[in-house]
Amino acid sequence: MKVGIINVTGYAGAELARILYQHPEVEIASVTGRSAAGQKLGDVFPHLSPLGLTITPDLEGSLDLVFSALPHKASAEAVIPVLEQGVKVVDISADFRLKQAAEYQMWYGVQHPAPSYLEEAVYGLTELHREDIRSARLVANPGCYPTSAILAMAPAVKLGLIEPDIIIDSKSGVSGAGRGLSLGAHFSEVNENVMAYALEGHRHLPEITQELGELAGKAPAVTFLTHLIPMTRGILSTCYAKLRDGAGGAKTSQRLQELYREFYADHPFVTVTGKPPQTKQTLGNNWCLLHPVVDTRTGRLIVISCIDNLVKGAAGQAVQNMNLMCGFPEDTALRALAVYP
Amino acid sequence: MKVGIINVTGYAGAELARILYQHPEVEIASVTGRSAAGQKLGDVFPHLSPLGLTITPDLEGSLDLVFSALPHKASAEAVIPVLEQGVKVVDISADFRLKQAAEYQMWYGVQHPAPSYLEEAVYGLTELHREDIRSARLVANPGCYPTSAILAMAPAVKLGLIEPDIIIDSKSGVSGAGRGLSLGAHFSEVNENVMAYALEGHRHLPEITQELGELAGKAPAVTFLTHLIPMTRGILSTCYAKLRDGAGGAKTSQRLQELYREFYADHPFVTVTGKPPQTKQTLGNNWCLLHPVVDTRTGRLIVISCIDNLVKGAAGQAVQNMNLMCGFPEDTALRALAVYP
Amino acid sequence: MKVGIINVTGYAGAELARILYQHPEVEIASVTGRSAAGQKLGDVFPHLSPLGLTITPDLEGSLDLVFSALPHKASAEAVIPVLEQGVKVVDISADFRLKQAAEYQMWYGVQHPAPSYLEEAVYGLTELHREDIRSARLVANPGCYPTSAILAMAPAVKLGLIEPDIIIDSKSGVSGAGRGLSLGAHFSEVNENVMAYALEGHRHLPEITQELGELAGKAPAVTFLTHLIPMTRGILSTCYAKLRDGAGGAKTSQRLQELYREFYADHPFVTVTGKPPQTKQTLGNNWCLLHPVVDTRTGRLIVISCIDNLVKGAAGQAVQNMNLMCGFPEDTALRALAVYP
Amino acid sequence: MKVGIINVTGYAGAELARILYQHPEVEIASVTGRSAAGQKLGDVFPHLSPLGLTITPDLEGSLDLVFSALPHKASAEAVIPVLEQGVKVVDISADFRLKQAAEYQMWYGVQHPAPSYLEEAVYGLTELHREDIRSARLVANPGCYPTSAILAMAPAVKLGLIEPDIIIDSKSGVSGAGRGLSLGAHFSEVNENVMAYALEGHRHLPEITQELGELAGKAPAVTFLTHLIPMTRGILSTCYAKLRDGAGGAKTSQRLQELYREFYADHPFVTVTGKPPQTKQTLGNNWCLLHPVVDTRTGRLIVISCIDNLVKGAAGQAVQNMNLMCGFPEDTALRALAVYP
Repeated sequence: MKVGIINVTGYAGAELARILYQHPEVEIASVTGRSAAGQKLGDVFPHLSPLGLTITPDLEGSLDLVFSALPHKASAEAVIPVLEQGVKVVDISADFRLKQAAEYQMWYGVQHPAPSYLEEAVYGLTELHREDIRSARLVANPGCYPTSAILAMAPAVKLGLIEPDIIIDSKSGVSGAGRGLSLGAHFSEVNENVMAYALEGHRHLPEITQELGELAGKAPAVTFLTHLIPMTRGILSTCYAKLRDGAGGAKTSQRLQELYREFYADHPFVTVTGKPPQTKQTLGNNWCLLHPVVDTRTGRLIVISCIDNLVKGAAGQAVQNMNLMCGFPEDTALRALAVYP
Repeated sequence: MKVGIINVTGYAGAELARILYQHPEVEIASVTGRSAAGQKLGDVFPHLSPLGLTITPDLEGSLDLVFSALPHKASAEAVIPVLEQGVKVVDISADFRLKQAAEYQMWYGVQHPAPSYLEEAVYGLTELHREDIRSARLVANPGCYPTSAILAMAPAVKLGLIEPDIIIDSKSGVSGAGRGLSLGAHFSEVNENVMAYALEGHRHLPEITQELGELAGKAPAVTFLTHLIPMTRGILSTCYAKLRDGAGGAKTSQRLQELYREFYADHPFVTVTGKPPQTKQTLGNNWCLLHPVVDTRTGRLIVISCIDNLVKGAAGQAVQNMNLMCGFPEDTALRALAVYP
Repeated sequence: MKVGIINVTGYAGAELARILYQHPEVEIASVTGRSAAGQKLGDVFPHLSPLGLTITPDLEGSLDLVFSALPHKASAEAVIPVLEQGVKVVDISADFRLKQAAEYQMWYGVQHPAPSYLEEAVYGLTELHREDIRSARLVANPGCYPTSAILAMAPAVKLGLIEPDIIIDSKSGVSGAGRGLSLGAHFSEVNENVMAYALEGHRHLPEITQELGELAGKAPAVTFLTHLIPMTRGILSTCYAKLRDGAGGAKTSQRLQELYREFYADHPFVTVTGKPPQTKQTLGNNWCLLHPVVDTRTGRLIVISCIDNLVKGAAGQAVQNMNLMCGFPEDTALRALAVYP
Repeated sequence: MKVGIINVTGYAGAELARILYQHPEVEIASVTGRSAAGQKLGDVFPHLSPLGLTITPDLEGSLDLVFSALPHKASAEAVIPVLEQGVKVVDISADFRLKQAAEYQMWYGVQHPAPSYLEEAVYGLTELHREDIRSARLVANPGCYPTSAILAMAPAVKLGLIEPDIIIDSKSGVSGAGRGLSLGAHFSEVNENVMAYALEGHRHLPEITQELGELAGKAPAVTFLTHLIPMTRGILSTCYAKLRDGAGGAKTSQRLQELYREFYADHPFVTVTGKPPQTKQTLGNNWCLLHPVVDTRTGRLIVISCIDNLVKGAAGQAVQNMNLMCGFPEDTALRALAVYP
């Protein structure tokens, strides 16, 4: 099967190439980039030299599926023509994640370029929408933070264990900010430092609210705060919510972990751990590690969630979705263990 | 004035020596260490070579004030004889922080070695107990996490702005774990990694509850969770609580920041910032940076608090307390700006 | 094929397990550990949970090949009985690297436990001894530093390009120090720091001299100095030597790179780069990146060499050697690209 | 005394402000910046808020001494008018370091803007030119790498201990690249990585050759190679040279260290250490730590040199020079110990 990657020159695009290189059924037939067009992929990313590809300004050749790793708005504009040629699309940008065009406009500050596709697009959090993904031709790959947060809270919300008032305190490595230069990703500013950012509201919040709201039947109140920490890869989200009276009997950490294990029993990339997980245990791989516990002093549920933001939070989940869309085993090319330490 | 440092060979002890070297009124007359007794301080810590000191097993000479940087229990046992000779003490351990011996025993797992001193000891969070510290002979220097958390929430609690249900999500550099070896502070395990720890309850929780409870008249419910991040120095605590109806009119971030500025107006080491602070802005110095905002979507107060865990969270605050106890200007030896970047 | 790993609980042992998990022809049938015997491998290393193994005190079952990741001396003592049962061995320790028992004793301070095997053992720097490795039953896997240094200098030495006086200035990540606790690997001591160590002579020096001497016909003078830098994985060695008069015409960087490319033409894991390589370009994979240039101002050859110390510098090369010893394609289980960034 | 800082908005400029804040005789009366003109200094650098300064486009008021932290060429153009008004200048740029305008043009690619000042300007490596600095009105503050390298080799060169063929292998933190954005200082590219750069020749080489040549009577051959390592502050240079026959009797490490101690006996900021130094032992302070040893296997001198690139390598040495130019004790405002760990 031949695939293309639009905008291979960012971190998500490069990570797609790295992962797909392991895929026995896939040939990366075309990779594009804007400023780097004409260069060899191996000159931009030496670790991708074995792929032997050259970056072109536009997709070339006949393709079966296309990944887009463009920024929002540009991505929708680029993939609509692809879709209309009958090629499947996994869009890593934010363009098709929100179901309401008005909400998209509010958070992204631009009018949606293709609102008519919002209904068709499937939100590609694989564990929640697997069956829809199988038959989708347009999958909106989730944001990195929402992947960690929604997986953490979905069982509690779906099972009605908690009050509809959730705090998500996320800590992210710097690669989430992408390869574009900014003072906020400048080594000397970020190293030996931690900061909160986007206190006025992070663009990933509406995805979280939308998906948890769909599970609950009604959108919960969500306080979502992001922090930048001095590492390259990884997101750890710490999620807090009050357990409801009764809470389905889930008043102990052990019982909670059982419920979470049942919830994710058929999902190969979500592991419920008996000890607090660490982001390093997911470095370079597609796992999400979840650890729900009860704070018995306050009756609060706490869930720790770890992913590699570039894998399960971006390119890995995109390949997982591609596997489903194309009928391959879900974990093809995704079986590598974490690079630890 | 002559001071001694018991257990100079840990990070808090060494940091005391670094800071006191700048103090025009203080001579470090005696420094002790257990395993390193007999060695030159400069052999253990080359950056302290200019002090020209030798580590002895016990305090030597006539001293006016003694700092103890021993672990809990050992510290109380070491400082009681010092106190009884009429020497003032700033104890950096946890031994005299909690007012209830039973609570100490519950959290630290040992019987308190000197419960009769608990009432007299002043909890040395300078900004809350300045007047008592001036006349104290025994100051219990606060833990690093409680310093960041209590300063963050004290105005909101004291002014009655919030519901008595608080979440404190703290992120700490690794030096807080001390100089003792452990897999949890092993470079290859900690670098490029983030983890939550002490989910079953961190020993610093009762200090936080005690002090906020004293301000409120009644102990609030506190969920306190600590995270280890790959940097050496710094703590950032993110604190969450529901604003009460009315909330004293503090329903905007701007108004909150005004109230916080008023609260800390006479305190040279607490700065309320207009932008989210970063731990690096406190690296090596004694400041606490606070940034309270309202999450208008959920009616929640969020306060970001940054300190250097070894300075305002340990040795710097100890010197600040010593300055008050001895009649020196509060900021003597503590005026250095942060080492940024 | 069934293999065993002796001492899976260090970083080299765990890395072996991670890599072999990808090997279609290999079943890890037995893993041992000393203090961790009886524990599940996934409890010690959560990222290895999918292997489903339990650590035992001794090897169990019938095995075709055994890796030893024990420290020196203990390793020889453990593998000799294995060898004598007709099982092939790849020894990651230093025990069978040096051909002279006397030199071993000088550098390691103990008498060699099995000197009679020194002649038979093949030094497992795959690119230099591939044919011998194919038929070996005991391979001595090289040290991490020697792998980077010998690969860097082998062409220059073999082709007679340089004077026999070489300086190797190596920079290593901290995982090279292993998982054992020490102040030298304590996060707060190592982070934001760089230091030289082993100035009196590093134990990896005699391997380098032995192998380069064999290529040259006579041992060169080698100054070898190691530095610890604040990262987990990776070694970059910068090697310096005077180009000989004539130097086979290799007086330009371009010509040097051509000669190096020819030298390594048949070796899939050595790449000669046209730009200075970075250790991150080898993170998690088995490549050695080499970049030879001429310092035209001084007539000196400079070679930059990058590897992942735990992969090409330890477990990856061990699997590469196993592949040869067992008749598998040399790159089986080793085709993953670097995890960049 | 009133001083100005031209271009306070880079790391060297900000570090000057940090250090001068501690200076009892100095008032920072004017600070300039290009893009940040009109902003409060504390808005650009929150840690400098206590200075209460506003950034202006040009120097304001009557000043006694001016520091320039502009890039090369712009700096000369800015300071000449200042000098001509009779104000002393410490120039942190490269503009007045090289004595030959032609060499400047070769390395910096532009014609020197004020070659007539090259003779008058004093190269501000304080330990080599202290007396000239006392009476200078224009001091060219050395580069960070040359400071570490020249201090390391000056005794050996001056005392005739070595052959005139030197290798300097330097490892630098990322702040040396400044605050300007580049992919080479982008966190995700630099973290967990080490690379060599400027293999074709670093601009700091001619300073090193000039100064060592002046000491030796004749310029030595110098191979100088720089490496970027994942930390913010610090340079460690490892210097190699063959000891001459005889070598003044300096054939042991102990004797070498004695000779170095004698050489620097009157210099408060150079310490010759008995153990290998670490950059962290200089973090935030003005010391240079030197450790000369003999590699007895090869008869080579090795000198390890550590500084904080922003302090002794830039702003600290600039203040040290100002102290001499203005008759203050050399260490005023520079007595702070390193911030360790």
